[in-house]
Amino acid sequence: MKKIIISLALVFSLFTAKSQESDSTVIANFFSEALSNKTAYGNLEYLCTKIGGRICGSPQAAAAVEWAKQLLKQMDLDTVYLQPVMVHHWVRGEKETASVASKVFGSKDMNICALGESVSTPTDGISAEVIEIKNIDQLKKLGKKQLTGKIVFFNQEMKSTYANSFEAYGDAVWQRVHGASEAAKYGAVGVLVRSLTLNEDYTTHTGIMRYDTTVAKIPAVAISTKDADLLSEWLKDDYELLFHFKTSCKFLPEVESYNVIAEIKGSVDPKEIITIGGHLDAWDNGQGAHDDGVGVVQSIEVMRLFKELKLAPKHTIRMVLFMDEECAQRGGKKYAAEVKAKNEKQIAAIESDEGGFAPTGFSIESSSDTVAMISKWKNLFLPYGVYNFSQGGSGVDVYYLKGLGFPRISLNTESQRYFDYHHSEADTFDKVNKRELQMGSASIAALVYLLDIYGIK
Amino acid sequence: MKKIIISLALVFSLFTAKSQESDSTVIANFFSEALSNKTAYGNLEYLCTKIGGRICGSPQAAAAVEWAKQLLKQMDLDTVYLQPVMVHHWVRGEKETASVASKVFGSKDMNICALGESVSTPTDGISAEVIEIKNIDQLKKLGKKQLTGKIVFFNQEMKSTYANSFEAYGDAVWQRVHGASEAAKYGAVGVLVRSLTLNEDYTTHTGIMRYDTTVAKIPAVAISTKDADLLSEWLKDDYELLFHFKTSCKFLPEVESYNVIAEIKGSVDPKEIITIGGHLDAWDNGQGAHDDGVGVVQSIEVMRLFKELKLAPKHTIRMVLFMDEECAQRGGKKYAAEVKAKNEKQIAAIESDEGGFAPTGFSIESSSDTVAMISKWKNLFLPYGVYNFSQGGSGVDVYYLKGLGFPRISLNTESQRYFDYHHSEADTFDKVNKRELQMGSASIAALVYLLDIYGIK
Repeated sequence: MKKIIISLALVFSLFTAKSQESDSTVIANFFSEALSNKTAYGNLEYLCTKIGGRICGSPQAAAAVEWAKQLLKQMDLDTVYLQPVMVHHWVRGEKETASVASKVFGSKDMNICALGESVSTPTDGISAEVIEIKNIDQLKKLGKKQLTGKIVFFNQEMKSTYANSFEAYGDAVWQRVHGASEAAKYGAVGVLVRSLTLNEDYTTHTGIMRYDTTVAKIPAVAISTKDADLLSEWLKDDYELLFHFKTSCKFLPEVESYNVIAEIKGSVDPKEIITIGGHLDAWDNGQGAHDDGVGVVQSIEVMRLFKELKLAPKHTIRMVLFMDEECAQRGGKKYAAEVKAKNEKQIAAIESDEGGFAPTGFSIESSSDTVAMISKWKNLFLPYGVYNFSQGGSGVDVYYLKGLGFPRISLNTESQRYFDYHHSEADTFDKVNKRELQMGSASIAALVYLLDIYGIK
Repeated sequence: MKKIIISLALVFSLFTAKSQESDSTVIANFFSEALSNKTAYGNLEYLCTKIGGRICGSPQAAAAVEWAKQLLKQMDLDTVYLQPVMVHHWVRGEKETASVASKVFGSKDMNICALGESVSTPTDGISAEVIEIKNIDQLKKLGKKQLTGKIVFFNQEMKSTYANSFEAYGDAVWQRVHGASEAAKYGAVGVLVRSLTLNEDYTTHTGIMRYDTTVAKIPAVAISTKDADLLSEWLKDDYELLFHFKTSCKFLPEVESYNVIAEIKGSVDPKEIITIGGHLDAWDNGQGAHDDGVGVVQSIEVMRLFKELKLAPKHTIRMVLFMDEECAQRGGKKYAAEVKAKNEKQIAAIESDEGGFAPTGFSIESSSDTVAMISKWKNLFLPYGVYNFSQGGSGVDVYYLKGLGFPRISLNTESQRYFDYHHSEADTFDKVNKRELQMGSASIAALVYLLDIYGIK
């Protein structure tokens, strides 16, 4: 019996070796084609430099939808369609201004930008004394007596000691999202939030903020890290300095927008679907290159790679360019609602939203068994530097597909530079390296290919 | 007996778990300190922007030696000294000029730079027809009849299909190193070599070339990839076009220069040495930031990390800033000769010379057993993205330590952007990301720490 077992094991291992060899060839072809083709990088250049920042509801977002639809229609895919979704339409208005006036140090203009979906200041702006805080406990201790009428300056730095910059972001992002309402509870009239970057520079990093409906809505802005450091220095010796800032952002009526969807129909089980995607919207202050023009053009590129290599997947590959990741995730929610309503069977959903840096792995939101299964493909990815298959959070847009019994997966990238650009005027096309971008495209294509062939068991 | 073995195994595994835990803490401290400290990045800024390009023999190379020596002397190390070595002194002279004149297309200036150690053109330059070739066989086939009096244009592209850009470089570098003498064998009067980069742009990438002493020395220059592409296009319809170029590079008498060496003496076995290093010289046309200012400041940073964390290594850590990696490796040869002459015992030699990109692993030039032993530490590095421990080539400077019975090791980095900058005017300080640089410093420190504790068995 032992001999038979050994023989079967041998046959199986030969079979495995054979199929892995052919898988490795297909995967090598994905990388080779992606690295030597200019289409995706050209697409990114167009999206960033011709359309630019494209927050949901904006004319630029509408232009991006139209651009993507037309581009996909020329790609010989089986279907291209728009999935309508109502979205917020927040506009920044005039360029924000800010200055600090100190009897000790003099006065100085400072770089700020309104946080996403903040209310504006009154027409003349706000002038008030500033209270700097670094954590939520400080805010509570100071209380109404010391905070009423003041501008609260949230100045918790992103910790440079983290090896993964996303962890540093995770620690500090509360002040941007919840700072305004936390401060308003104690009578503050406005908030300044240190820009969420590990750089010391004059860029301003916006991002969504949310109001607690039980307190007054006060205006919230991000301040550049260099200005934050200077303000903090001045406050040490002059706590009576006056900070003035002026914003004119506001909401316009909601707008109909769209997820842009395209499919290569499965040749065997077309009703079983692998979703891939990124988000089409991007903050208005930059070009939305790394966040998330990259995810958009990589998703389109995966479709191009399958067509170019003449691969007919067994299951349907559906590419979704989500609208409104940055504000209210209406696109992600709408897509998930449709999947649920149609009771669709999906194999997995993969999102790219960590920027166009060299891919390092996949974060898989699923059971340990599924993670272990997918991780068995790791050796096929190692030649390309994609080494880290781990259980963890996936993307914001595919989040809403939770509970439907299939893994949601995020492409992970080398994280050191991400927050140099994130949500800022520095997130421009020229900051994306073509080869790093395309290593990511090929990595997603390779994972889709394996998911299509082997499924999730 | 079995029980005893199991118990011993248990004790051993507990011991291993314990020691790995404490190793992981030390390593975490290296990363945390490196990522939050500005010294190394400041050092790089000084070396790049205040001293700049520093090819061996140049006043800048001398200034770099002096700068490094003074810097190290302020670091409370056990010894800092200079190891003299005679080096070449090749100078570029005036900025090179080139133009193409075609009866069909008109004329155009082109971006070129002399290859390292090339002879110059005559004072008036060279004008000749151009023969484009893409491989050595073409050259042989054309022969003397068609090549005599011509400029040979080596236009083999670096292949973009390689996932690792160093492989693409390896394939194409022959034309830069040997092109001139290969063409001279058939009577050519000069050579143009396509710049070794995966970018399409106007930067020019120099690098060492070597003459075969049996043939005439003809001038050799690199041409930007965009100009190479245009020239190739024009040649299709006008093989009689005239290319003119002028260089004034030359050799001056050899100069005494130095390897800069500093040590932290071992607390237990000071005569056993771990060598770390990078090279201090850099091409004159850029700032030598990635190549190899990074290796220099990372090596210095490793010393700072050991001092800052108050770690007293058992064995001596010796940092060597090698002179003349780019031309004749006189520094590497001298260092190896001294190690041999003194019959020094070394544990390992580690070089950083792949640029300041995120570290991905270590390439180990040693026996499979030693590679396997070092690879056992991999789990300690995985949290930092350093996943690839493999048998392979090490650095040019530590190459000359071969045959002495200890491993030579190279820090590997994410390779996609390296040849955007390598040997060109684009290799400047601003192209290095502080965090990526420091991930490399901490990775080297971690490996030195483990080599010191566990040795090579």
